[in-house]
Amino acid sequence: MKDAEDIHRPMLNSLQSTSAKMKKIVLSVNAGSSSVKISAYSALFGQAPIQLAEAQISGLTAPPPTLRYTRHGEKVINDEEVKDQKVSTQADAFDILLKTLIDDNGVPEISSKEDIAYVCHRIVHGGDFVRPKLISDETYHNLEKLNDLAPLHNSTSLVIVHRCMSDLPKTTLNIACFDSQFHHTIPEHIRTYPINQDIARSNHLRKYGFHGISYAFITRATADFLRKRVEDVNIIALHLGSGASACAIKGGKSLDTSMGLTPLAGLPGATRSGSVDPSLVFHYASDVGKLSPASTKELHISRAEEILNKESGWKALTGTTNFGTITAALDPSSSSSQNLSREEVAKMRLAYDLFVDRICGFIGSYYVSLGGQVDALVFAGGIGEKSDRLRAAVVEQVSCLGFGPVDKEANETRVGQELDDDHAVIEIAPETKKGGHKVLVCKTDEQFEMARACAEDGEFWR
Amino acid sequence: MKDAEDIHRPMLNSLQSTSAKMKKIVLSVNAGSSSVKISAYSALFGQAPIQLAEAQISGLTAPPPTLRYTRHGEKVINDEEVKDQKVSTQADAFDILLKTLIDDNGVPEISSKEDIAYVCHRIVHGGDFVRPKLISDETYHNLEKLNDLAPLHNSTSLVIVHRCMSDLPKTTLNIACFDSQFHHTIPEHIRTYPINQDIARSNHLRKYGFHGISYAFITRATADFLRKRVEDVNIIALHLGSGASACAIKGGKSLDTSMGLTPLAGLPGATRSGSVDPSLVFHYASDVGKLSPASTKELHISRAEEILNKESGWKALTGTTNFGTITAALDPSSSSSQNLSREEVAKMRLAYDLFVDRICGFIGSYYVSLGGQVDALVFAGGIGEKSDRLRAAVVEQVSCLGFGPVDKEANETRVGQELDDDHAVIEIAPETKKGGHKVLVCKTDEQFEMARACAEDGEFWR
Repeated sequence: MKDAEDIHRPMLNSLQSTSAKMKKIVLSVNAGSSSVKISAYSALFGQAPIQLAEAQISGLTAPPPTLRYTRHGEKVINDEEVKDQKVSTQADAFDILLKTLIDDNGVPEISSKEDIAYVCHRIVHGGDFVRPKLISDETYHNLEKLNDLAPLHNSTSLVIVHRCMSDLPKTTLNIACFDSQFHHTIPEHIRTYPINQDIARSNHLRKYGFHGISYAFITRATADFLRKRVEDVNIIALHLGSGASACAIKGGKSLDTSMGLTPLAGLPGATRSGSVDPSLVFHYASDVGKLSPASTKELHISRAEEILNKESGWKALTGTTNFGTITAALDPSSSSSQNLSREEVAKMRLAYDLFVDRICGFIGSYYVSLGGQVDALVFAGGIGEKSDRLRAAVVEQVSCLGFGPVDKEANETRVGQELDDDHAVIEIAPETKKGGHKVLVCKTDEQFEMARACAEDGEFWR
Repeated sequence: MKDAEDIHRPMLNSLQSTSAKMKKIVLSVNAGSSSVKISAYSALFGQAPIQLAEAQISGLTAPPPTLRYTRHGEKVINDEEVKDQKVSTQADAFDILLKTLIDDNGVPEISSKEDIAYVCHRIVHGGDFVRPKLISDETYHNLEKLNDLAPLHNSTSLVIVHRCMSDLPKTTLNIACFDSQFHHTIPEHIRTYPINQDIARSNHLRKYGFHGISYAFITRATADFLRKRVEDVNIIALHLGSGASACAIKGGKSLDTSMGLTPLAGLPGATRSGSVDPSLVFHYASDVGKLSPASTKELHISRAEEILNKESGWKALTGTTNFGTITAALDPSSSSSQNLSREEVAKMRLAYDLFVDRICGFIGSYYVSLGGQVDALVFAGGIGEKSDRLRAAVVEQVSCLGFGPVDKEANETRVGQELDDDHAVIEIAPETKKGGHKVLVCKTDEQFEMARACAEDGEFWR
């Protein structure tokens, strides 16, 4: 799976340019369907970047959009409505975020666009790319081609890449960081779909896997926590958010993951079905192969993909995309549970039990992939960080594999406290017996991981 | 999940009719896309049926068709070409098989159609049916409706049901035995797909599961072998053939299985992809939602379903549908491996490794579903019975769960010998340590299981 680039990649220690000895500003950009987040770092080549500020606009699909801005870890603007400015696209949001950052005198390192050396863009589908890629006019077209594989996922990021290439100075380097690249180590017999291989090759049909920027962070943070080298770490990692996936990591490298050709496969999410019988959608509605009305001339989205990505998941089961609403409904002492009918609570329970069941299935499967040599089960992502109830239920159900029991105080109280303090990893269950395995919670940080990857890559510092 | 029928079902011991005290002839019919098999039994109500004869026509899709006939366990006709008779449909094949049986003076119990009391038909998709169903003119239409859910699977059986209803005497009862019925105990949160539930209900979209007639046999045979009651048995069962599935059985009942709404989901098969990213097929070819040219006025099959059911699996990877050819190619001492190029052997290895990987994934997943309380891992089906290499590879890979090591002599020699002698279950790995689990091979017998179900069901003997 190594591509030719790797061979010609300059060695870190052979770099002698002055560029590599200067502090530079790295911006990490993370665009979702409804929000855009940028984080600014000061970075030295080969060293961990230091965050200066972070800005986010949310609510793009549920106006009014709101702005949050944090400088040196302190909230400066707290979910203020964005007024008097057009915010109809991710690129509009990016412009506002960048202006907020530049106008802030509290961050003197960034006083004009010229101060920004690198913009790292999170791109969901990276096709065959195995490492971050400098975006030139030429490679931009390669990124556009990837849209065919992931129209629902890549296009939001590309809008911002395009804006940066036209509006930022030529000295600013745009770098694509791919969510799929961490999984390039998945062996052939695991990543292959048993379909016609000529068509698979020509149409690029295989398991790619996603959430890889997060898994790279989780792997490194877990290794630090365990005081092991990254290449010695075996974990089962769960990135659970409105998009959710699981990953088996062996020797610091992805061995298998639950998402596939696209982020649709595997676990269900807020609006995503996850894996279902591949023939299901043909029994769901007629003409599912037709283009969705949401398609554009450039972007072709079948009605089927729209149904399974946007109209399914726990939203379809319960009406809410907020997993916190689901768990609150199951807590008899919560006010929300008292306001719900028995039928509504039953729907919430179904969505919750279904999610726990599917997660535990992947843990069992990946436990076998790793031959039982598992340093830790690691929870991450919004739900992974926040839902002590879900963590406890999952660990209980996989106790036969040697996980748990969960330390109630650590799980229910310390996780909330210490993640707020930016501790990256917290242990909620130690190895209590021989053959037992730790359970951890990790505050993953895709923004930082992209900046770190940029700071470590000699090719970008020549 | 219990339907109203169950409540009104007559108790076995309350039956006083003379009908229930007479020996009767039961015919079990199993129709595949390329073959039809009938087995004739003599049965007393409430007792295990005794096989009289078995007849099979193979090669319907690869002419010339051949006939095999066995009387009282002895081969009478051994793969003879069927000449001078039209065999274009499964119903034609059934006619020849029935005539062969009736004309055989060695089975005096069956000398005319009138001697046949019951014909049990294996029907793949049974929708919401939870037990075998007497087929009347009215219920036949219900079976036809199920064709919408499983056009590729049910239609071959229905052709024979239709022939039996028109050509056999009115005194012969036709009984539908469903491959899905064993799985009606799968809990709601496991059988539910996270999609719009109104559409799920109206279009009958949920996990049904298949191979259930086989799993019912395997469960009973394993319980006998372990000297346990069926309701006390927890197993992970693998039915591995050109269609392959896995099943978690808890307390003798299906808790989860790998197939879904249709037999497409789960493990790959000879021509079936198994689970793939549900969006994959839309990237495979254009217009996959359109009807396949193989569709008829009655049967609608999308091009996508045809691709994933008929043009995938190890046939797509290797060119052969015969798994034995694949394992032979991996044996350096076999002549077939010596005749293959390195590239061809690599294709065979990919298909083999991929199958082992997917099987082990389900074992890990179901081990967790069963909370580690597993009496045995049970191999069955053509590949499960025949491939000692596959069994050894799977058990090795799941050894971290407490399975194995495999007894080489039992696995490689005794299985072949003793299954020929009609031992239903053979142990290939004992529980060697505390917390360990047995590994068994079971010669499953769907024909017998259907006849047994018929002989046990008081409703059919009134």
